[in-house]
Amino acid sequence: MHKKAIAVHGGAGTILKSEMTPKLEVEYRAGLEASLRKGWEILDKNGSALDAVEAAVVELENFPLFNAGRGSVFTHEGRNEMDAAIMDGRKLKAGAVAFLRNVKNPIGLARLVMEKTEHCLLAGEGANEFAHEMRVEFETDEYFFTEHRYLQLLKAIEEGRVQLDHAAGKSRIQTSPAPKLRKAKPLGTVGAVACDAKGNLAAATSTGGMTNKKFGRIGDTPVIGAGTYADNATCAVSCTGHGEFFMLGVTAFDVAARMKYKGLSLEDAAAEAIDNLTKIGGEGGFIAVDGQGRVVLPFNSEGMYRGFVDEAGEPVIEIYK
Amino acid sequence: MHKKAIAVHGGAGTILKSEMTPKLEVEYRAGLEASLRKGWEILDKNGSALDAVEAAVVELENFPLFNAGRGSVFTHEGRNEMDAAIMDGRKLKAGAVAFLRNVKNPIGLARLVMEKTEHCLLAGEGANEFAHEMRVEFETDEYFFTEHRYLQLLKAIEEGRVQLDHAAGKSRIQTSPAPKLRKAKPLGTVGAVACDAKGNLAAATSTGGMTNKKFGRIGDTPVIGAGTYADNATCAVSCTGHGEFFMLGVTAFDVAARMKYKGLSLEDAAAEAIDNLTKIGGEGGFIAVDGQGRVVLPFNSEGMYRGFVDEAGEPVIEIYK
Repeated sequence: MHKKAIAVHGGAGTILKSEMTPKLEVEYRAGLEASLRKGWEILDKNGSALDAVEAAVVELENFPLFNAGRGSVFTHEGRNEMDAAIMDGRKLKAGAVAFLRNVKNPIGLARLVMEKTEHCLLAGEGANEFAHEMRVEFETDEYFFTEHRYLQLLKAIEEGRVQLDHAAGKSRIQTSPAPKLRKAKPLGTVGAVACDAKGNLAAATSTGGMTNKKFGRIGDTPVIGAGTYADNATCAVSCTGHGEFFMLGVTAFDVAARMKYKGLSLEDAAAEAIDNLTKIGGEGGFIAVDGQGRVVLPFNSEGMYRGFVDEAGEPVIEIYK
Repeated sequence: MHKKAIAVHGGAGTILKSEMTPKLEVEYRAGLEASLRKGWEILDKNGSALDAVEAAVVELENFPLFNAGRGSVFTHEGRNEMDAAIMDGRKLKAGAVAFLRNVKNPIGLARLVMEKTEHCLLAGEGANEFAHEMRVEFETDEYFFTEHRYLQLLKAIEEGRVQLDHAAGKSRIQTSPAPKLRKAKPLGTVGAVACDAKGNLAAATSTGGMTNKKFGRIGDTPVIGAGTYADNATCAVSCTGHGEFFMLGVTAFDVAARMKYKGLSLEDAAAEAIDNLTKIGGEGGFIAVDGQGRVVLPFNSEGMYRGFVDEAGEPVIEIYK
């Protein structure tokens, strides 16, 4: 008897309560909750873990405050370049995309790579060409231009043209809003992991990359084993944080390997994998689920936007430690 | 006391003795031997494993018959797109490049990614821009146009304009030379692994990709954990074969994980990793070395171009099972 389970994340990093406004926190929580509900609805109707993680990540990609899909940050050249990966633990198949532009939901294209090609990872012009051939939904640059719009909003707040709903009693933002937003913006990735009624596992991760990144950097998100992994025999994992360290530590697969080869529980394997990440200098965290529906959401950063569905079927959202 | 060791490969796949000419075999063997000698020379002078694997792979990249560097195959669009990765087991640092064009030695640029940037993997235009900024050596399209030139040579042989030096007594090639060459051409990757006098490990892999590949496919070569991995605590690994399966099995890291978490010897970990590759449907092999200088060169394909340096310091070259 398998227990249905889902967890999502919206990125990890320096998320300080002192720099978060109550209004922003409410918005972040609402984004995570909407994602969990979408995924849970599928699991609850005995849908597949694969469909659940895709739907949950689509919701996070459409939410403008997370660094994925619509909310993607800008590269050094002022462009949005998005990466995503999905893995089906039942078939041990995966699909991933890198440097995607103007595709509304990169996670959907990653799934098409898995299902319609013999490849695992498509990047750049080729990936965009594949997107056109698959007739996925595209959006204008304007659609992805959310950070700029948000900075405008914050500027308006600072100038007193818009008032925030401050629970803490402050009536004005004290410091420059631009760096505040940068700090509030997580080391950006979104992701979901799920276990369905049949005990099938799946993981999905999507990102808008690093702000101001140069030289066509690819991070851990579209790298199977680093940022994303799923195998029914062990667990499904979706990572977020400073990608290079997840690549060097092969963190997502590392959790699975510690379960498979050391016989550890998901909880112990996850704790060891986070310790190892810390040891090699990496910051961030991950969400993971095993075939019994156990969920872990460990991280070594100040915070991680995260949530899961509890025993009663209700979303539980957490941000700080 | 560590034992210096080096191994190299020039790709794995359908390498049938019946389809190999003696002249071609002599050439392949000479290419592998030259690579081993370059790497061994460095180790013998107490140079680093990192320098040794880079030098060995540079030699293989410059050799026109292997699918890397100069000998890279052509994409669907008729372009050469090269990938490479290098990993330093001492520092657990890595650098990789994908979709590189006209760079003479992709492995050298991968090392610069590791040493001069904070990233692990640069791809496409950005990687080429980085190459220009690093002032690495570029070559013309003509330089990489070796397959075409080789087909011309075979045609000349077929038409009797050039005579091969046949040991087996045949005076003419019997079938169309183009498919023959395609078959002889390995599922192409080159690589090297080494252990130096201090017990430091390193791995390097380089490829010209898949013939006729579409849609900006990235294979296992530049993916840390899949095609390339090195960690002083366990082993250094360089893979070759059908890349997608090495990505799904996270094969290079899998060898290290089986040593680290199951306490297996390099030999047993390698045997299990190849069994797993076979189980998930993958074809190919890898070379690996541990901190005591033990070397393994397992594969599940018809053949793998491979070599290592024996106890007496002499190169040993093998192609078939």
